[in-house]
Amino acid sequence: MKVGIIGATGYGGLELIRFLHNHQEVEKIELFTSSEEGAIFSEKFSHLARIVDRPLQKIDDEALKNLDVVFASTPSGVTSSLLLPLLQKGPKLIDLSGDFRLKNLASYEQWYKKTPAPQEAIEQSVYGLSEWNEQQIAEAHLIANPGCYPTAVLLSILPLIKENLIDPSFLVIDAKSGVSGAGNKPSQATHFSETNENFSIYKINEHQHIPEIEQAIAMFANVETKISFNTHLVPMTRGILATSYAAVRSGVTQQQLIECLQAKYAKHPFVRVIEEGSSIGTNRVKGSNYCDIYVQLDERTNRATIVGVIDNLVKGAAGQAIQNMNIQMNLPQTMGLQTVPLFI
Amino acid sequence: MKVGIIGATGYGGLELIRFLHNHQEVEKIELFTSSEEGAIFSEKFSHLARIVDRPLQKIDDEALKNLDVVFASTPSGVTSSLLLPLLQKGPKLIDLSGDFRLKNLASYEQWYKKTPAPQEAIEQSVYGLSEWNEQQIAEAHLIANPGCYPTAVLLSILPLIKENLIDPSFLVIDAKSGVSGAGNKPSQATHFSETNENFSIYKINEHQHIPEIEQAIAMFANVETKISFNTHLVPMTRGILATSYAAVRSGVTQQQLIECLQAKYAKHPFVRVIEEGSSIGTNRVKGSNYCDIYVQLDERTNRATIVGVIDNLVKGAAGQAIQNMNIQMNLPQTMGLQTVPLFI
Amino acid sequence: MKVGIIGATGYGGLELIRFLHNHQEVEKIELFTSSEEGAIFSEKFSHLARIVDRPLQKIDDEALKNLDVVFASTPSGVTSSLLLPLLQKGPKLIDLSGDFRLKNLASYEQWYKKTPAPQEAIEQSVYGLSEWNEQQIAEAHLIANPGCYPTAVLLSILPLIKENLIDPSFLVIDAKSGVSGAGNKPSQATHFSETNENFSIYKINEHQHIPEIEQAIAMFANVETKISFNTHLVPMTRGILATSYAAVRSGVTQQQLIECLQAKYAKHPFVRVIEEGSSIGTNRVKGSNYCDIYVQLDERTNRATIVGVIDNLVKGAAGQAIQNMNIQMNLPQTMGLQTVPLFI
Amino acid sequence: MKVGIIGATGYGGLELIRFLHNHQEVEKIELFTSSEEGAIFSEKFSHLARIVDRPLQKIDDEALKNLDVVFASTPSGVTSSLLLPLLQKGPKLIDLSGDFRLKNLASYEQWYKKTPAPQEAIEQSVYGLSEWNEQQIAEAHLIANPGCYPTAVLLSILPLIKENLIDPSFLVIDAKSGVSGAGNKPSQATHFSETNENFSIYKINEHQHIPEIEQAIAMFANVETKISFNTHLVPMTRGILATSYAAVRSGVTQQQLIECLQAKYAKHPFVRVIEEGSSIGTNRVKGSNYCDIYVQLDERTNRATIVGVIDNLVKGAAGQAIQNMNIQMNLPQTMGLQTVPLFI
Repeated sequence: MKVGIIGATGYGGLELIRFLHNHQEVEKIELFTSSEEGAIFSEKFSHLARIVDRPLQKIDDEALKNLDVVFASTPSGVTSSLLLPLLQKGPKLIDLSGDFRLKNLASYEQWYKKTPAPQEAIEQSVYGLSEWNEQQIAEAHLIANPGCYPTAVLLSILPLIKENLIDPSFLVIDAKSGVSGAGNKPSQATHFSETNENFSIYKINEHQHIPEIEQAIAMFANVETKISFNTHLVPMTRGILATSYAAVRSGVTQQQLIECLQAKYAKHPFVRVIEEGSSIGTNRVKGSNYCDIYVQLDERTNRATIVGVIDNLVKGAAGQAIQNMNIQMNLPQTMGLQTVPLFI
Repeated sequence: MKVGIIGATGYGGLELIRFLHNHQEVEKIELFTSSEEGAIFSEKFSHLARIVDRPLQKIDDEALKNLDVVFASTPSGVTSSLLLPLLQKGPKLIDLSGDFRLKNLASYEQWYKKTPAPQEAIEQSVYGLSEWNEQQIAEAHLIANPGCYPTAVLLSILPLIKENLIDPSFLVIDAKSGVSGAGNKPSQATHFSETNENFSIYKINEHQHIPEIEQAIAMFANVETKISFNTHLVPMTRGILATSYAAVRSGVTQQQLIECLQAKYAKHPFVRVIEEGSSIGTNRVKGSNYCDIYVQLDERTNRATIVGVIDNLVKGAAGQAIQNMNIQMNLPQTMGLQTVPLFI
Repeated sequence: MKVGIIGATGYGGLELIRFLHNHQEVEKIELFTSSEEGAIFSEKFSHLARIVDRPLQKIDDEALKNLDVVFASTPSGVTSSLLLPLLQKGPKLIDLSGDFRLKNLASYEQWYKKTPAPQEAIEQSVYGLSEWNEQQIAEAHLIANPGCYPTAVLLSILPLIKENLIDPSFLVIDAKSGVSGAGNKPSQATHFSETNENFSIYKINEHQHIPEIEQAIAMFANVETKISFNTHLVPMTRGILATSYAAVRSGVTQQQLIECLQAKYAKHPFVRVIEEGSSIGTNRVKGSNYCDIYVQLDERTNRATIVGVIDNLVKGAAGQAIQNMNIQMNLPQTMGLQTVPLFI
Repeated sequence: MKVGIIGATGYGGLELIRFLHNHQEVEKIELFTSSEEGAIFSEKFSHLARIVDRPLQKIDDEALKNLDVVFASTPSGVTSSLLLPLLQKGPKLIDLSGDFRLKNLASYEQWYKKTPAPQEAIEQSVYGLSEWNEQQIAEAHLIANPGCYPTAVLLSILPLIKENLIDPSFLVIDAKSGVSGAGNKPSQATHFSETNENFSIYKINEHQHIPEIEQAIAMFANVETKISFNTHLVPMTRGILATSYAAVRSGVTQQQLIECLQAKYAKHPFVRVIEEGSSIGTNRVKGSNYCDIYVQLDERTNRATIVGVIDNLVKGAAGQAIQNMNIQMNLPQTMGLQTVPLFI
């Protein structure tokens, strides 16, 4: 297989390279850029010396259409126009931006404050939540790879909503992310001296992942709800932990909650239900494609606390994208992704 | 004034020293220990060379009872027995542990898994939430200094509950703390390599600050409720940020919410209502006695997001204790506490 | 006293405010800016709400010349032109940049790659290494406040060179700094995700503090030497630790080395000689104006290891500047600077 | 191949598992413990759920002697006695402790303050600096895997000493390490609140890696010298950067220095000579088996600054151990080790 990466110089792109480099079926990785044509990749990112010494290529439809898979790891608002010319062409397309996720164009415009992609393209796209949409992903030409927060949230709460064990009408989701989620462009908000030793809340009630989560709850659990969702910046580089709160249906037990999660994911290698008593932090999954989940019933309030942890750059971005490529290409889902979590 | 600190070698004790050293009315600080009698303090903590070169004293009722104020910064379960002999004696007592906070002895036993202090002592104690209990603190002999999480949570949510602007029946409080809250004793959970670059949730639905928050809501806002409350460990040393979620009463506006907070704290120097558009993180208050709060109405869900940030070791422990001492001693509340936040 | 700060929005400026706010003799602090005239300071830096709510003023010679002291905390190359018009006027001037430090104009041009200040201004300036130049500082009109690295290095090695206990002919100085030394302007090199969990060396053999250190060794110890000096970036915000290596003169003992340091600084409150067996890290001095120093003779090689630690923003910038102001104004050196180190 | 790990629960053991799990020729990994026999590994380290779910076995010579390779990742002083019974038996032995590194028993005793292994065992052992001792490693039965600091130092300075480009008589080596080098056992020195935001120097002139480096300089470059060597703790988890200083021989140029390094390592996949202008930090190699090196001539002083960076847990421990296993087993050196550096 020959694959291409548009936007290879971002963190999503670097992670795609990290995993694809050791993917058994990937023979060639071509790197595309809008602005740095000809630059030797390992001169720009010298940690990749002897690993990726080839030059960046100009984004060019001719070069792209001969590839088997094209990953777009460019910003929302930019990606859709780059991929549109390839839509009816040869390569499978996997977009890591938010451009093809929301089926409702007005919603995209409202939350992203950008012009949406054309309706036809949106309709063609398949939401790439690997463990919930495998059949459609396998047949998809264009995959909208899920956002980092939605991945951690949805994998942990969807089974409980779908099986009607929790009440989705007052769902509070409090999410925390490492700083790499903000990308590689320097800003005051990611300036070391002001980010380090500082835990902050941002985009209060305004994060663009809100409609994505609500849409997926409707899509996979058939429930319309409005969530409370807030995002926080943790002074670390990688990792997302999302804590969700919901009332449980009358009579539901802790055992039912846990078994619901276990049943759903028994055959899915990358989602692990955490054993009671284990420590639950982002280092469980660091550098790997796992999503680890947990639920605990608070009998005092009859509410459940539901936790999901991922590496935002892997299961929350590049890893899930490659998992989706594997599904599209009829390869084992784990191919190239069997990296053991770093833990420390 | 002569003050004493029992448990001076913990982080709470060190912060008491840091502020009391520059307190205009404190002439002498005596340091007491159960185990290291005679040790020169600055040999143990060499960052205090030339600042605190006196020896630690044995805990001795005779020595203690001649002081004006005694701070206890020893662990819950230990403190009550140390302070009981001093209860009817001269010094004002300020306890930073949880031993005198809960009025309900059974509740203490349930959440702390320890033997409670005697009923009479508990009854005498006054809950030291400075901005809500000033009158009683001024007259108190024994002050139960609030926990770190309750301080951040209560200061931010109490005005809104008391003024009936939010519905306390489904109150979700998601709190995050720096690692210094765990004290100075090494453990696997605070071992650098496993704490660094790791955001984790702990004591799910079991934190002993739950009954303290519920009791204070009843005490100051006259509302009985059961909260959902979870705590997370942030890979940083200082700071707490608590995010609370509640439905707002019908028709309540953003302006009403903000004005409610502003009205309550207009004359309280250490609680600041954050201006819209400001960044909201723990570095706003680092090293200082401020509690900064914010509320935002999500019109989409008609729920409010309420945020409180403190330095857990200052407003969440030693700083509030000194503020309470100032109130007891009829000094300006800000004396010795006018430290400007470090920010970076 | 009325003081002014030019460049108040940088980290040096913020630290000047932090200490001057609690300085007993400072009645008014005026803040000057080249670009943000009229902005309310606490709206820009909301951690200073209720503390510094006044507006930034335009840099204006008339306003400045009526002040008692003016601190310049603007970048090298900019500062000299801002201060020149004030040189013969009323206020004492304390410059935190490198513009007036090097007496040799060609050297400035070579290392800073900028146009030097005029010779007359350079000649007037006094190098503000407080513990080594007190007499001249007391009489100075214009003080060139030392660089952060030179402060940590010089305070630790100068006594040993001056007393001829070590051989300065092969002096290796390996220095490490927190990221705040790079200032508040975002860049790839200070972008959290690339700075965190990354220890790096930078400006190899090219740091502009090299000629400053060599000049001061000549000035205070009367020795001409060329040092090896390298700088490293530590993933933390505050603190410098400098490790120096030199052969000791024949027959010199550990006791002589330590006593040399102790003798020099016995009467200087801010330089502490660390006791053997103490841990030696930047947290000893965090947030404070101390410089802690240590020396250890390696009998195996007959070389000494010399260590100096400071908070780069305090003793390495704003703190030493205020110490110098105190000296100029005939106030106790410690006024406003008695902050206890945070330690954690 | 069947391999065993004694001391699997330490950080070295966890890294061995991380790489061996994806090693194409390793069919089975058995885990041995002295104290936790029967414990399911993934219950103790739940980040390894679904990856290493087998139980820990008792250390048992019978079980061990049927393996192909046994890694010992136990503390110095313990390891030698565990491996001695296996010395003449089937498995190849690779020891990650310091027990078999020093050929001089008195030196071991002096620096480690422990009883050395028997002379015969020491004589049998081969020092496993992969790029410098390949022939002997290939034939070795017992490999003494190098220390983390020596690996970073030796790979960067040995070529220059061997080719007589630098003068080894006054060699200053200033090394810095992340905290994981201290292992997984909690202590005050690795307690998060006191390690975070703190850069410190430790074991001044007393680190046990000093004789190891000197011995290797003698062994591979045929030069007897006494080095100055100090170690510092960086508030990060992984990574070592070592900065070395030496006078260069008269007339030697920057080009000669760089070419010397390039020539030595041209055919060694894991040692990369950094291009001029690249940033040089530990994130270049994070999580990978690379050692990146650099040299820069300071023409002003005619001394060279030599830098080596590694991931202390990989090239400085488990990675080099597996590289050595590959050499012993006549496999490609890179097998199982082609992990791309994480960078962030």
